[in-house]
Amino acid sequence: MSRPEDLRWLDAAAALAARGRPLSRPNPAVGAMIVRDGKVVGRGWTQAGGRPHAEAGALAMAGDAAQGATLYVTLEPCAHASARGPSCTSLVLESGLARVVIGVEDPDPRTAGNGIAAMREAGIMAELVPSTAARQSLEGYMTRTALGRPHVTLKLATSLDGRIALADGSSKWITGPEARAHCHVERARADGILVGGGTLRADAPRLDVRLPGLEQRSPQRMVLTRGSAPEGWTAVANIAASGAFGDAQYLFVEGGAQAAATFLAADMVDRLLLYRAPIIVGDGLPCIGDIGLGSLAEAHGRWRNVDRRTLGSDALDVYERVR
Amino acid sequence: MSRPEDLRWLDAAAALAARGRPLSRPNPAVGAMIVRDGKVVGRGWTQAGGRPHAEAGALAMAGDAAQGATLYVTLEPCAHASARGPSCTSLVLESGLARVVIGVEDPDPRTAGNGIAAMREAGIMAELVPSTAARQSLEGYMTRTALGRPHVTLKLATSLDGRIALADGSSKWITGPEARAHCHVERARADGILVGGGTLRADAPRLDVRLPGLEQRSPQRMVLTRGSAPEGWTAVANIAASGAFGDAQYLFVEGGAQAAATFLAADMVDRLLLYRAPIIVGDGLPCIGDIGLGSLAEAHGRWRNVDRRTLGSDALDVYERVR
Repeated sequence: MSRPEDLRWLDAAAALAARGRPLSRPNPAVGAMIVRDGKVVGRGWTQAGGRPHAEAGALAMAGDAAQGATLYVTLEPCAHASARGPSCTSLVLESGLARVVIGVEDPDPRTAGNGIAAMREAGIMAELVPSTAARQSLEGYMTRTALGRPHVTLKLATSLDGRIALADGSSKWITGPEARAHCHVERARADGILVGGGTLRADAPRLDVRLPGLEQRSPQRMVLTRGSAPEGWTAVANIAASGAFGDAQYLFVEGGAQAAATFLAADMVDRLLLYRAPIIVGDGLPCIGDIGLGSLAEAHGRWRNVDRRTLGSDALDVYERVR
Repeated sequence: MSRPEDLRWLDAAAALAARGRPLSRPNPAVGAMIVRDGKVVGRGWTQAGGRPHAEAGALAMAGDAAQGATLYVTLEPCAHASARGPSCTSLVLESGLARVVIGVEDPDPRTAGNGIAAMREAGIMAELVPSTAARQSLEGYMTRTALGRPHVTLKLATSLDGRIALADGSSKWITGPEARAHCHVERARADGILVGGGTLRADAPRLDVRLPGLEQRSPQRMVLTRGSAPEGWTAVANIAASGAFGDAQYLFVEGGAQAAATFLAADMVDRLLLYRAPIIVGDGLPCIGDIGLGSLAEAHGRWRNVDRRTLGSDALDVYERVR
């Protein structure tokens, strides 16, 4: 009984969910909207540290207006009790809501379908309406649950011919201020940000978020090295090791070529941000090192272009790994 | 007294002119439309070998309908007599046309403004309405007249990381069939097509136009070498030498990295076609060799993105040299 407007409301809930990213960690960043007679009467998103949950916030805002209304929520409401508060499913059962529309079933085995079943038993019309927007807004949580590692974005900023620096190493600047500001927004959406040991030694990057109002969002800084890390940084020796990135849901890899190749060779890149400046460098440093590719045929069918933007005189292309 | 529709008619004349490219050589590929009461009564474009001219064709088609009509023509009508026929200006004077709208003044000193002056003297309203479309359709002729060399397009077909082959040289295929077909259309619009000596030896490319109906458009094949060329090919030893490319107005350079670098280092690339496949190669052959760049600052401000197309799973970006 899903309707076209269900997907539109789930899109809106997914947009709300973005407000919780990445501060909701270790919880998923969920978005919730309560709609009655076509009007929004409640909105919520997972708060910093994971509580209150999105549904709790939306129900608190709606109050009595939740009677007979519909809840749109990106992820199935949790069904397991927690020391930190009641489950969202129990809140829904007490709410008077008539209908609950869910974008993604929770892969957490403590909930996985149990929330939907409990609501239906109580006479609430609970439906799963698969939503691309909801799934995308949860990709960090979904990747962590399925693969035990964060969702990884690899960022490259290159010339038209794929160079990240001149042969002498100079790299300031390839891209312009608009592309660099965009990259800072992307940093602010990550839990962790990583560079290779060579890049840390050569460029000593700050890797912070230098955007007004978002300075507090600067992610955990990580360096790929078998050695030690400077103060304020975390050393990662083996990207495939369990817990290598703590509980991070979103990891942002900024290079250099060897770190990029390490993640690509391990097939651990889910999203590629390719910032390109309209310049030609010629002989210079390549953006990606050896990934152990055996043949061109192997390289095809792995990446899909999902977005393109003009940023000042630069272009950004976004690719997703086809899995 | 130019009006918005003047530019639209000049756009249409420029589109007609494309039919003459590159067969009009050594003449410019010109387009002409005769319009009376908002209706097209004559159309013409430079025929193979350069004659008849576009204006002559359009006037022959219009006949008596040219009386009081307006001629839209991409290039100023020629004003000098030729053993091959009367000048277009003299044809216009006898035509009964009331108005002539010209997109680009002819840089040929034998005409340069003389055509416009003669028409005005005869009471015809002759106007120059600078048209980007007309200028672009004549860029081979304009480049040859101004710089004594053809307009040069450099084509690159790379992976996302700017590679044109694996480290072992294998390059079949980077891009897909749609991108390769698009490239064959571009070949068909060139007078000459050039590869480096290394590419000729390694790949033995045919460099012909493999599109139904356009096989006859296969351009003159050239190889950048100090040695000799195979049969059917022309050897070019020095790209800066006068007459290095015969009377070609449009040269298409297909690589490899060293040939690309030679043209870029000489600042002889006017247009860049960047076909990009959604693959990552890692360690492989770069698309452009050393161009002698001294600093990143030097590299900026030279290229402008003028077009972007999706070709199958590949992307094409077109850049123009900012001069």
